[in-house]
Amino acid sequence: MGSLDFFYFFGSVYAYPSVLRIGPMAEKAGVQVRWRPINVRPLMRENNVALRDEAQKVRYMWRDIQRRAAWHGLPFVKPPIWPTEPDLLASHVAMVAATEGWVEAYSVESFRAWFLAGLPLGTPDSLAVILPRLGQEPERVLALAQDPAAAARLDAETDAARQVGAFGSPSFAVGGELFWGDDRLDEAVAWAAGTHPAQR
Amino acid sequence: MGSLDFFYFFGSVYAYPSVLRIGPMAEKAGVQVRWRPINVRPLMRENNVALRDEAQKVRYMWRDIQRRAAWHGLPFVKPPIWPTEPDLLASHVAMVAATEGWVEAYSVESFRAWFLAGLPLGTPDSLAVILPRLGQEPERVLALAQDPAAAARLDAETDAARQVGAFGSPSFAVGGELFWGDDRLDEAVAWAAGTHPAQR
Repeated sequence: MGSLDFFYFFGSVYAYPSVLRIGPMAEKAGVQVRWRPINVRPLMRENNVALRDEAQKVRYMWRDIQRRAAWHGLPFVKPPIWPTEPDLLASHVAMVAATEGWVEAYSVESFRAWFLAGLPLGTPDSLAVILPRLGQEPERVLALAQDPAAAARLDAETDAARQVGAFGSPSFAVGGELFWGDDRLDEAVAWAAGTHPAQR
Repeated sequence: MGSLDFFYFFGSVYAYPSVLRIGPMAEKAGVQVRWRPINVRPLMRENNVALRDEAQKVRYMWRDIQRRAAWHGLPFVKPPIWPTEPDLLASHVAMVAATEGWVEAYSVESFRAWFLAGLPLGTPDSLAVILPRLGQEPERVLALAQDPAAAARLDAETDAARQVGAFGSPSFAVGGELFWGDDRLDEAVAWAAGTHPAQR
């Protein structure tokens, strides 16, 4: 029989749904649970740093993403480049794409190239590979991306996210209803479709 | 047709699964997606504070928990007390319960009482209500909870969580495989059962 250590803190709000769900779920899966309350405060203090500054959290993030990809049936190759360059060219190209109506295809292609083919986001070399696949001429697009209008649009879009209260990526908003994180994608889609149980 | 604003950042690792999943999911649900790349860095800088110190994140947390409870079919009443008192008596009683074999029932009863009946965790008044429901005599249990052995066990359990790399609550560990957050409970149970797709 498989077994599982369940570490949780008395006072942790997100432990509430786990405490109520883990027993029946584990029983159904034939898994034994060791209930192990802990004091989470020292662990949080020790790790109270930005994700990218702490090796343990970074290791967790990559392992988590790898498992999540498998969980969702998505391909995964750990991208060799992270964090990405902060020059924002990838985002400025996205503003051109948004203005011209090809932002979805550009986004999917960019993230696939970043994760699966090891192409860094927003370098001229990567864009020279990605843009032609979308029927776009790199020279024309890069010129528009460097126009102040692209930076202005990015600021405006960022402000729109700020207005709905977003504080991380990805976020999803249905009117004023905010959902944060890839884990909430299914809930956000259900909310937009009007079928989320909390809407009843 | 319902619609959804999808805010994401070029460079955000957790945007990868969303970028690849949102199109088919939204189409299936009959939902329209507005793809809106943003610059998440200023939003993260503005909100780089502990969760409990920032009104916007706290509001988000309660709304999120309320929706998650509905999503999982769990009852929800916003507990009037949060954050909980840091005196750790609830955790020390949990150590007594773990030693004596009733920690699961104590945990479920405590979290239900906290969330649904507004009973703060770990106060003598709350424990006087909760413990008799479990067939436990409050005076006896409180005496044991105040014994240094309970504090020592809590330290040891917290150290066990530290050893597997835990940095938050709830966390789940299957051998050396760590899962963090209620959102990962289904994956952790699958891992313990040997059926997680990343195990193949």
